[in-house]
Amino acid sequence: MSKRQLRIGLIGYQFMGKAHSNAYRQVARFFDESPVEPVMQVLCGRNEAKVTNAARKFGWAEVETDFRKLIARPDIEVIDIAAPGNMHEEIGVAAALAGKMVLCEKPLGNTLGQAKRMYNASIEGKAITAICHNYRFAPAIQLAKKLISEGQLGEIYHFRGVYLQDWIVDPKFPLVWRLQKDIAGSGSHGDLNAHVIDMARYLVGEIAEVTGLLKTFIKERPLLAEVNDRLGGAASDEMGEVDVDDVSMFMARFENGAVGTFEATRFATGHKNYNRFEINGSKGSVIFNLERMNELEVYINSDAPEIKGFRNVQVTDGCHPYTANWWPAGHIIGYEHTFIHLVYEMLQAFNRGESLNPDWLEGLKNQAVLEAVVISADSGRWVSPSSLL
Amino acid sequence: MSKRQLRIGLIGYQFMGKAHSNAYRQVARFFDESPVEPVMQVLCGRNEAKVTNAARKFGWAEVETDFRKLIARPDIEVIDIAAPGNMHEEIGVAAALAGKMVLCEKPLGNTLGQAKRMYNASIEGKAITAICHNYRFAPAIQLAKKLISEGQLGEIYHFRGVYLQDWIVDPKFPLVWRLQKDIAGSGSHGDLNAHVIDMARYLVGEIAEVTGLLKTFIKERPLLAEVNDRLGGAASDEMGEVDVDDVSMFMARFENGAVGTFEATRFATGHKNYNRFEINGSKGSVIFNLERMNELEVYINSDAPEIKGFRNVQVTDGCHPYTANWWPAGHIIGYEHTFIHLVYEMLQAFNRGESLNPDWLEGLKNQAVLEAVVISADSGRWVSPSSLL
Amino acid sequence: MSKRQLRIGLIGYQFMGKAHSNAYRQVARFFDESPVEPVMQVLCGRNEAKVTNAARKFGWAEVETDFRKLIARPDIEVIDIAAPGNMHEEIGVAAALAGKMVLCEKPLGNTLGQAKRMYNASIEGKAITAICHNYRFAPAIQLAKKLISEGQLGEIYHFRGVYLQDWIVDPKFPLVWRLQKDIAGSGSHGDLNAHVIDMARYLVGEIAEVTGLLKTFIKERPLLAEVNDRLGGAASDEMGEVDVDDVSMFMARFENGAVGTFEATRFATGHKNYNRFEINGSKGSVIFNLERMNELEVYINSDAPEIKGFRNVQVTDGCHPYTANWWPAGHIIGYEHTFIHLVYEMLQAFNRGESLNPDWLEGLKNQAVLEAVVISADSGRWVSPSSLL
Amino acid sequence: MSKRQLRIGLIGYQFMGKAHSNAYRQVARFFDESPVEPVMQVLCGRNEAKVTNAARKFGWAEVETDFRKLIARPDIEVIDIAAPGNMHEEIGVAAALAGKMVLCEKPLGNTLGQAKRMYNASIEGKAITAICHNYRFAPAIQLAKKLISEGQLGEIYHFRGVYLQDWIVDPKFPLVWRLQKDIAGSGSHGDLNAHVIDMARYLVGEIAEVTGLLKTFIKERPLLAEVNDRLGGAASDEMGEVDVDDVSMFMARFENGAVGTFEATRFATGHKNYNRFEINGSKGSVIFNLERMNELEVYINSDAPEIKGFRNVQVTDGCHPYTANWWPAGHIIGYEHTFIHLVYEMLQAFNRGESLNPDWLEGLKNQAVLEAVVISADSGRWVSPSSLL
Repeated sequence: MSKRQLRIGLIGYQFMGKAHSNAYRQVARFFDESPVEPVMQVLCGRNEAKVTNAARKFGWAEVETDFRKLIARPDIEVIDIAAPGNMHEEIGVAAALAGKMVLCEKPLGNTLGQAKRMYNASIEGKAITAICHNYRFAPAIQLAKKLISEGQLGEIYHFRGVYLQDWIVDPKFPLVWRLQKDIAGSGSHGDLNAHVIDMARYLVGEIAEVTGLLKTFIKERPLLAEVNDRLGGAASDEMGEVDVDDVSMFMARFENGAVGTFEATRFATGHKNYNRFEINGSKGSVIFNLERMNELEVYINSDAPEIKGFRNVQVTDGCHPYTANWWPAGHIIGYEHTFIHLVYEMLQAFNRGESLNPDWLEGLKNQAVLEAVVISADSGRWVSPSSLL
Repeated sequence: MSKRQLRIGLIGYQFMGKAHSNAYRQVARFFDESPVEPVMQVLCGRNEAKVTNAARKFGWAEVETDFRKLIARPDIEVIDIAAPGNMHEEIGVAAALAGKMVLCEKPLGNTLGQAKRMYNASIEGKAITAICHNYRFAPAIQLAKKLISEGQLGEIYHFRGVYLQDWIVDPKFPLVWRLQKDIAGSGSHGDLNAHVIDMARYLVGEIAEVTGLLKTFIKERPLLAEVNDRLGGAASDEMGEVDVDDVSMFMARFENGAVGTFEATRFATGHKNYNRFEINGSKGSVIFNLERMNELEVYINSDAPEIKGFRNVQVTDGCHPYTANWWPAGHIIGYEHTFIHLVYEMLQAFNRGESLNPDWLEGLKNQAVLEAVVISADSGRWVSPSSLL
Repeated sequence: MSKRQLRIGLIGYQFMGKAHSNAYRQVARFFDESPVEPVMQVLCGRNEAKVTNAARKFGWAEVETDFRKLIARPDIEVIDIAAPGNMHEEIGVAAALAGKMVLCEKPLGNTLGQAKRMYNASIEGKAITAICHNYRFAPAIQLAKKLISEGQLGEIYHFRGVYLQDWIVDPKFPLVWRLQKDIAGSGSHGDLNAHVIDMARYLVGEIAEVTGLLKTFIKERPLLAEVNDRLGGAASDEMGEVDVDDVSMFMARFENGAVGTFEATRFATGHKNYNRFEINGSKGSVIFNLERMNELEVYINSDAPEIKGFRNVQVTDGCHPYTANWWPAGHIIGYEHTFIHLVYEMLQAFNRGESLNPDWLEGLKNQAVLEAVVISADSGRWVSPSSLL
Repeated sequence: MSKRQLRIGLIGYQFMGKAHSNAYRQVARFFDESPVEPVMQVLCGRNEAKVTNAARKFGWAEVETDFRKLIARPDIEVIDIAAPGNMHEEIGVAAALAGKMVLCEKPLGNTLGQAKRMYNASIEGKAITAICHNYRFAPAIQLAKKLISEGQLGEIYHFRGVYLQDWIVDPKFPLVWRLQKDIAGSGSHGDLNAHVIDMARYLVGEIAEVTGLLKTFIKERPLLAEVNDRLGGAASDEMGEVDVDDVSMFMARFENGAVGTFEATRFATGHKNYNRFEINGSKGSVIFNLERMNELEVYINSDAPEIKGFRNVQVTDGCHPYTANWWPAGHIIGYEHTFIHLVYEMLQAFNRGESLNPDWLEGLKNQAVLEAVVISADSGRWVSPSSLL
């Protein structure tokens, strides 16, 4: 009857810190059947005033301003890294070597080298890990996974994924940290294509080789005056160089013979968060669009000929994973729920002493694809991700 | 090997005359298997210059300016009435009593009395008849009919039909004949709701009673200076009274226990030709939208629970009626093709010595529903269409 | 800096109790700018074991099993009535006369008489009130309201609303309380059409008269063995009578000259929670669908002719109400968020000593429309809601 | 008043022959304002019985069985090449050198060499030419072109085109000529990606370099027993090798700085003729889908912030090109109409003594892109199309 409690220390309190906090808060309320529940113990950030305010707002019991102190605390069992990419390695390695259970935001590192060192530390520290590819935990994605695993789509021929946003199409949009290579590592590539890559690997399989293209359309932007928690902020008068990609595109050959196209851009005017993919197999197809994440389009080739067609499946019925914990059929859930589902699954895995699927090895493999694309974009040739591992 | 030829005399050369002409021209080209083909012999209209020009343009061999002369010609076997509604009775009765095969545009008459006299004349003259409810012959509608007839939708509970246009929402749009009661009989009611009623009766069954509402939003408009063939024309400076409905709405109880809503309006800003209906049965549902007439949405309740959803069926595959005569799957057909299909079916029926389904009796029954709505709109009570017959 | 705290006592812990609890929990976390915050003090229900379990699960500090005791507690400032409709009057009158701030689920009562007595009690007790028409607080609805208020749609001609579900189309679905007149008052009528009516009145205006139709397709169902919190439950072997409507339909004339159709049904096979309406005005139109509640389709007639069309507006950008408190553009919110927004607005109003819009007077007016439809369905005539007040 | 008549000789009578025949037949009927009209004089094919039957069916006055005789006839002014790709060069060169006006189906040749020789012959013979990229003449594409030309989309950043079909996903589908390299030249590449390339070049501009991938999923198929006119036919028992691509994919850098993805496949299960592209510019975007070819989605970034969204423009209003010649707004046209529009424009150009845009030079440039993709697919490197010319 009494549940195991896992005390969490979360590092970072902007967009991702807010989403993770909400996930910890909500998971116990809606997944009462869980034998384990999180305790929102410590929020960690460098600026004491800001982190204190965020902790109050998000509901954390305490704050720390030094992540090393946080990791050193024996009461904290789970470290959650929601800081920018350039901090992942330092925090991740320390947490892993300290034998913590560690959740890390995606991508695992800003470079493949960083990701490798993190993964190695997790092996050395026997750390239980998780990477925050939250979209896997949308019920519609779980349905796609099930259909493919059961062979309902047959042999997979095609993956076609795009992640289209337009929040920086205005040249006056300021140089936020997501547009700075030393912090973010890359632009749309690691931020958006990392999601598409994870989805493709999760649903279709390993990628054998890629040929890529990265491009920066607007090379100078106003420096940032003040940040907000919705990706943007106020612009200053001074200009700075954009050293990350505005668009990241590649073609892929999968190991199982399928072929794929990938595109992530922040210059697709009119699209806000259009993370859409399509998978075609010999027996059927699925189409997902994050902006309508409660739906999955499904085509079953063995349907009666005269009534074949893409079905718009509302993935809100009680027969789908997680949905019975929420609302009746047709009452939709939102973006934040993917984090709640991930945290739920992570808690179950951690409680069993196991890493979550996806763990840091998954993160590392995604990173190898990201790196292969970067190398290919530079050389103009096809590159094998696995050759980089 | 040699085909029977049916000589046609078409009365009217505006919008409907153009559509009918095209149907006669194309049917033989695309339905080569037909044992009978039309001959575009005579186009008839009161204005000799205009009808001569139209005949040249549309491809008719001769013209007549007096419909009585046309009907008197023994070489003309089929009379096609595409003149405004106030002409239907006079022409239709004459043609029927002359024993012609007669196709009449919908609605059959401007009043139930007119329609009755036409129907009676067709019985007296033993005339073979057809009424031009062309939408029945969209492949998607044929599919809906088949699904319902086979019981794939089960017991029907709901019909929900709208016909939304916006071409007169501008108060400066002129008083064309479609807005004059003495010519058109009614406004959106007979022009648009006649289509919805025919669809409902065709697919769901007879209507037991109705309660209706008719309304004219804009009561005065500029008189028409000159007509064009796209419903409109140029406005003059003088104003005239609009004595037809802008919107026609009603609720219905069907004889089989289903219930329905009907709405036709020319004031649905943003909609051009949105003739959409939905039918829900105990086992499934269908949704049709004329603006996307090559598609039918189909829901099958016995589908596996986790992949139930409305299927978007592209009704362009060779397994659907008529489509194999056109183009490969996915290559859409248009509005005009519904007339070609109707003419094809009419020719087959006429060749067998039978009336088309729908014939004038169908037209009469549709008219009874139209009239019942008018009476109900006046009295505020439920009215039974069959009580008017 | 320190916020005013309002202690809440919530009565009811099933579907609505769960949704309200979540709203109280989340509002402070995401609307930090609010000068007032709720305290989840008491959950009230008749079954002590069940209410205790629910309180733990949803996060309430205490429980009560007698609503009169709850109302008598001076520390409880806000009473939230999420019990079935047959309890509303008794609780509502007591709470109102005790001078509490009271939020009541919709519809206000099971009959117009009940609603009137509640409203009168609120006047007598000078109670501050609110009614839980949560859909008003979807950002897309707020946008529709703004466009209409600013005159961007011009004079309103048409309202066209449906609320389509299919959860009882299976004749073996058990006789849950929502299908029992003595508890629920009505079927789809008060449950679903109440929402459509509120939306129509909120956006278009007062309804002058209605003509309605109520129908029960399946008149006997298995009795309920055990309830779940997703509207359903397990069926027993015994049968019982369904004495509420399966479908509720009506036509309306609005006071401002617009006309409307309304339909609510639980027999629209394939639809889960399809609460869709469309409003057409002389200058533009809007379309909303609850299943895609983050979107609003908007048509602006003054757009350049060649690029006129319904715009799919993603109402997730920071310029829309509430959205800046959630996630970046394109990251959707869900059904539950409408309750959070309502609670936020209610707290602001209560803090100012005012009732929320919508309050019990709004609830009463909605109820008069519901009642007018019932009377009309019985008499077959048009009925004026205001004549019943 | 009397029109110039151009006598046509059409070579080929299968799918394309049927579509071209219809275009000649219909153009005069619906584009009466044209000062020039085609005369359907000669249909040419090798099998006399079949071509005679087709001529009767499609409405051609005479037949020829030898294209050289056709070209030698002085009365034939226009040669229309709708034969398979392996015949284009021989016919095209002869017709061009004979100084005919020549329309050729796309792609111009099966190889760049063939296309070059055809183009050179057209220069040498001072031939007036046209290539049948009919999709350019959909009203929605004309609208896209207009918006881009007027700068309404600003600087173009992205082109994203797919052409998805599934008609050969069944391994038992026979080895029709479209799957044989010696006749068709390539598979989805020349058949489908040729369309996407033409669209991209027409709307975005010249392609500077490409990197491509071609793949054949199913390498052996049953030989064809008998052909039909809807792409398929009956399978025999013997097997044969598929030597063309099932999928053709590439990425492109445009000369103006835009980037693009292209994919054409016949293995996209569930898609029939899904030729969709999207173009994103600094000021707006457009999306087109051939299966809904009467619509264009348009996004205008300068719209008021709260009502920005993709507009679904029904390109059926009289303000769009060609539509006033057809039906009232909302009454859709189909696939075949794109040919009619092309023929209309071709007749105007030929009457002025000019080549159509697109002419053989356009065809040649498209072919250079096709060839560059083939070379790139082989070498794994980026290839410049213009370097091949």
